Formats: sequence, structure tokens, C-alpha cells
Amino acid sequence: MTASDRLNQTSQILDKSINRCNSSVSLLHVDKPFKVTVIGSGNWGTTIAKVVSENTALHPTLFQPTVNMWVFDEKIDGVSLVHIINTKHENVKYLPDIKLPHNLVANPDLVDCAKDADIIIFNVPHQFLSRIVEQMKGHVKPTARAISCLKGFEVGKKGVQLLSSFIEDELDITCGALSGANLAPEVAKENWSETTVAYKIPSNYRGDGKDVDHRVLKALFHRPYFHVSVIDDIAGISIAGALKNVVALGCGFVEGLGWGNNASAAIQRVGLGEIIKFGQMFFPECHVETFYKESAGVADLITTCSGGRNVRVAKHMAKTGKSALEAEKELLNGQSAQGIVTCKEVHEWLETCELIHEFPLLEAVYQIVYNHVAMDKIPDMIDELDEFRIEQ
Amino acid sequence: MTASDRLNQTSQILDKSINRCNSSVSLLHVDKPFKVTVIGSGNWGTTIAKVVSENTALHPTLFQPTVNMWVFDEKIDGVSLVHIINTKHENVKYLPDIKLPHNLVANPDLVDCAKDADIIIFNVPHQFLSRIVEQMKGHVKPTARAISCLKGFEVGKKGVQLLSSFIEDELDITCGALSGANLAPEVAKENWSETTVAYKIPSNYRGDGKDVDHRVLKALFHRPYFHVSVIDDIAGISIAGALKNVVALGCGFVEGLGWGNNASAAIQRVGLGEIIKFGQMFFPECHVETFYKESAGVADLITTCSGGRNVRVAKHMAKTGKSALEAEKELLNGQSAQGIVTCKEVHEWLETCELIHEFPLLEAVYQIVYNHVAMDKIPDMIDELDEFRIEQ
Repeated sequence: MTASDRLNQTSQILDKSINRCNSSVSLLHVDKPFKVTVIGSGNWGTTIAKVVSENTALHPTLFQPTVNMWVFDEKIDGVSLVHIINTKHENVKYLPDIKLPHNLVANPDLVDCAKDADIIIFNVPHQFLSRIVEQMKGHVKPTARAISCLKGFEVGKKGVQLLSSFIEDELDITCGALSGANLAPEVAKENWSETTVAYKIPSNYRGDGKDVDHRVLKALFHRPYFHVSVIDDIAGISIAGALKNVVALGCGFVEGLGWGNNASAAIQRVGLGEIIKFGQMFFPECHVETFYKESAGVADLITTCSGGRNVRVAKHMAKTGKSALEAEKELLNGQSAQGIVTCKEVHEWLETCELIHEFPLLEAVYQIVYNHVAMDKIPDMIDELDEFRIEQ
Repeated sequence: MTASDRLNQTSQILDKSINRCNSSVSLLHVDKPFKVTVIGSGNWGTTIAKVVSENTALHPTLFQPTVNMWVFDEKIDGVSLVHIINTKHENVKYLPDIKLPHNLVANPDLVDCAKDADIIIFNVPHQFLSRIVEQMKGHVKPTARAISCLKGFEVGKKGVQLLSSFIEDELDITCGALSGANLAPEVAKENWSETTVAYKIPSNYRGDGKDVDHRVLKALFHRPYFHVSVIDDIAGISIAGALKNVVALGCGFVEGLGWGNNASAAIQRVGLGEIIKFGQMFFPECHVETFYKESAGVADLITTCSGGRNVRVAKHMAKTGKSALEAEKELLNGQSAQGIVTCKEVHEWLETCELIHEFPLLEAVYQIVYNHVAMDKIPDMIDELDEFRIEQ
């Protein structure tokens, strides 16, 4: 085969790929195009609203082109943010310098946003979720479907609850999740990245062409710069999205100690193993593949451990000997590194279950953050379980 | 539970871990301690020789303390390198500033090194392997066992051959492999890292206390700063060790294009998937777990993709538009980036098997390096197979 043959072959592969993409969407049709609403307008909320608005405009047989985005209205130099977004088509406060599609409409009225929506995308800060959901109660269509872009879970006395399950329970609508190796500004700038959408077809599915399915979600979220895979493992991607922040603290510690890339990779390896074990233990419906095959699994773990708040706080602790609280104060302007909260919640839950010994890395991070255990004990602590294998 | 209770608990965990480590080794005994030889004395060869010499000194009931290290002798300022190593206990040429144990003895005579050895550790550059093995033929004990620290495989007309299988076939002795997220200088400085040793107990195993087994290999390689897990999947760790370099080129391309961490994580995710598929397709005895659970799998991939020769060459190509050859010349002083060779061998093999379309990332890297396909086509090329899943 000559070089030019090979080039031809490549072009054919590319052509086939593009054709298939088009045909897969053009084959789709629904009886009544779905109305899409995004709840939230921070940098990630606005970015996702941009993504889906581009797609609703492109597929009018599937979606009503206009996308409502609920905005908690505030004044910017005396002018309403909603007004600015709807006239300048830019979220000057939370996603400056990114042009938004004209079919994306900011709306300050939460109930008005929710009431006609067939697909509701949640993308608000975790701490506001319950208040917002409370206000939406009784105002969503009983046939609506939802996707949560919030990462993580809540750990209470009853155990680990996924945020998507919280939305399902409160609003009595089926809810999936979106998670991946996505930094909002990069996606907004249309730098290529990937994500995972998880959605389980509910038992009250109304049938092809009448209800949301995996192909509809692919058409809604997939962009040339934002590659989507749709699976059904909501628990898997939610667990991975929460625990990666704890693993990132571990990476920050060993980097801060000056132990180099080998050590950080080792922490990520052990972390991936504990994430899988946590998922399988508390959500037996999880698939192991989700964690090592999906963007929301191994890729998000790698991105998070290569930088970001958790790594920075942990490195600072290692280098200065300061506490997590002090490090957060000095680096994050009053914001928090999510791993600090999550490792405590996870520790308390594992303690209740008497399962701490099964998760030596998660426990090591907790002990370092809250009980001043020395960081250089991590290798000994995580070796605990590896020993078993040899002796079995 | 109070903070101090928790600290006590942690100490107990640590104590248990240490006790178990000690007991696991102290329980081991063999009829006649094994003689260990290391073939090779580059920076990785000398580092591994240091590791095993520390352990043979520690466990005289398992190993003869003296470890021979075969050195291709050369003059350093008129003095023999062998002499320098044996008097100064430092490999001034290939691992300067690292003190070597006194029970590690440099020996320029390959046959003399080989003839009494019960465990032979190969750690030479790939291109010298066949010549060295040729010289050893007829001079190794028929009961000897070997471990190859060389990464990768050879692809010829007959298909993919592991380097450990090459050693097995040529010397008629059982051979395993060692691979992991290990940069030699970091391990030499005793910065913590992890590795994987793979060894399959052969059918002519002579019995506990008489032959090499997984516990013996753990005792030989495990150090407080070098954590070892021993498994039996030689093919898995060898495939991962070779293909990671091709994936690293892909990461370098997207980094060089300025696409950021999300994109690099995406390439690693797709790469891990193709590595697993390659392993399972050509070595059905591979375990999927090896790739996502072991240091030689996901951790080595992460380390390699976070830096090193392949990433540097690919970034340089992306930024300057130069060819792989030019980039290697400008950056590597006549050395080569292994991924450049491997992606070609793999492409040719997959072409023979008519399986190119199953490995879009490996193929994309090949096409970019050898056929000037544009780097920004990677997302389209690797999306090819993802599409299938949605449509199934």
C-alpha cells in the first residue's frame, strides 16, 4: 500500500465517520420536538447551555430551537444580567468573551423556565440545589426528563445518595447525569474534549419518537468539539466525579513532597482502584468499565489530578506544613477544595459501615487532612491491601 | 470516635501492615539460597541491581547476598568502569551520585555472570538483547529463571513477540517481566514508586522452597520505596509498556496544538481502551484488570503521557510543523522516541491482519507521523468507533 493509498483510506474513514454521524441524527424524528431548559448560568451552566442551543438549532425536528436558561438575576454596572445576556448574547459575568447562540434565552423566572420543559438540565452549585428544586416542585411536566451536570453525591445517615436520585425523588421525574474531563472555559472556547452522559431508560418510557432516549441525548449534547458517549451507569459516573477530588489531594501531597511523576501516577492508580471498589460496594449496579473506559472515569481523574484546586491546596499543605483550612484560605479566596469536604463525608460513612480498612488511600487522605498524620506514611498505608494479594 | 482514637487506629493499621510484611518474608525459606545476576548496567540496569542487592543482603536465607552485575566494560578517564564500580561503589557513568551496596559486584564477563545464576534479570537496551542472549546460550543453568526489565515487544511477519518469550525461546528458561511507572533516577534516589512483576509459574515448577515463585519475586524486588505487585500476566504488562509510547505521541500532538488537559486526558482514555483491545485480541490470556489496576498499566501510561521523550517530540512537531525525524534530531541528540518506531510496527502488523479500523488512535498517530495527516483530525478519527456503540 502506498502512502497515497493510505491517505485515501484515511479520508474514507473520515468520510464514513461524518456520514454516519449525520445519518444517525437525520434518521431520528420525534412526534413533537422536545423543549429544553437549562437551570443555572455559572460558567459551566452557560457553557452547557451554549452546547445544547447549538444542537437544538441544528436539529429542529428533534428539539424546539429556543432554549431557556434560568439565571439568578443580578445587576452588572446597574444593568440586569438577564438583559445583557439577551441583548449582547454574552454572559459577561460568568463566561466573558464567549459568544452565545441567539436561540439561547436567559430567563429569571424559575417556574416559567421549568413549566414547559421536556428536558431539564441542572447545572447549579451543589449548595443551591435543594432550594432550587424546592421552588420547582409542582411546576414541572410529569413527563419531563432531567440531566444533572452536578458532580458528586451526598453522604448522610442513610448512606450515599446520588444528586440525580435526589432530583428524581424530589420532582418525581427521571434524571440522568453528565460528567467528564471538562474544564468549562476549555469547552466554551471549543477546544476538543469528551464527556459521558448517563441515562437509564425508565420503566414508564413512552416509546421511540415520543420520549428521551440515548440517541436523543447524543444529539442534544454531542458537538464536533465535545464528544459524548451515552451509557446507563449513572452511579458509576457520579461516584467517580466525587471521589476523584480526594485522589487529587493525595496527588498534591506526594507532588508537594517532591516525589515526582511516578508517585503521582501511583496515587492515581490506587485511587482508581478504590473508586471502583466504592462504586461496586455501595452501588452494585455500577459497571467496572465505566471507570476505566469513560471520560467521566479515568479521563476526569487524570485531568483533575494534573491540576486544579485540590492538587494546589494539598501541595501547599505539603510545602508549608499548613492545615487544609489555612491552605484553602491562602489560595482559594474563601472558596473550598471539594476533596476536603468529600474525604470527611466518606470517612464518616465508611466508619459507620466498618469498612475503613478497605479504602486505605481515601482514609490516608482523611487522616492527613483532619488528624495530622504525616504525608510520607501514604505508601505504607496504601500497601496494606496489596499485601493480601501476595499472601492469598 | 475521638481524634486520638483515630490516630491510634491509624498506627494500628500501620503496625499491622509492617508486621505482615515482615512475617510474609520471614516465613519464606528455601533449601538453597538463590544466586541472582543482573545483565546490564545502564541507569535502569544499575538501579534494579541496587534494589535487588539491598534485598539479597536482607534475606540471606532466600538469596545469596552477592549479586553479579554484568557490565560492558569501558574506560572512564583511563580507568575501567568495572573497577570504579567495585571500588567506589558508584556507577559514575550511568548512575552518578548514587551509592551502591557493597554486595553488588560488577563483572565484565557475561558467561561468568550467567553460569551460576538461579535468577537472571535482563536489563539491557532492546537493540543489544539478541546479541547478548546469543553469547549466553549453553552457559545458563537449565533450572535458571529469568525476569526481563525490557519494555515492549517485537513485531515481525509472524506477529507480535514478547521480549520475555524471545528470551525463553533462545535460552530455554522460563522468563517473566518487570514494568511500571518508574523513572530510573527517581527509583535510584529512593523516591517512592510502584512496579509490577509478572511471572507465570511454569509446568516444570520444582516445588515450594526449591524454585522461584511470586513470594520469592516479591522479596527480591519490593523495597519500602519501590512497591511491587506480582501477577502472572506477562503479555498484559508488555503490551502496555510498548503501546503507551504511541499514546504519549498523541498526547504531545494535542498539547502542542494548545488544546489543554481535557484533550490530553481524552487521548489517554482512548489509548487505554485500544491497549486493552490490542492485548485481548493478540494475547487472549491477558487480563483486563492488568491494564487498569497495575502500575505497569494505567500508572505507567499516565507517567509517560505527562512527560518524556515521546511527548516532547510530538509537541515540537505540533508547534513547528517539523517532521518526526527533524524533531528527534533537534531534541534528542540522535536518540529516538520509541513511539515513532512502535506506531509503524503496529500499523504494519494491523494492516496485515486487516484490523486497522479497530485501532483509530494508534492509526491516527501513525498517519500523522508518516503520512502528514493533520493533527486536528484526531478527534474525528477516534470518534469512528464510539459511534458504533450508540447505534447498536
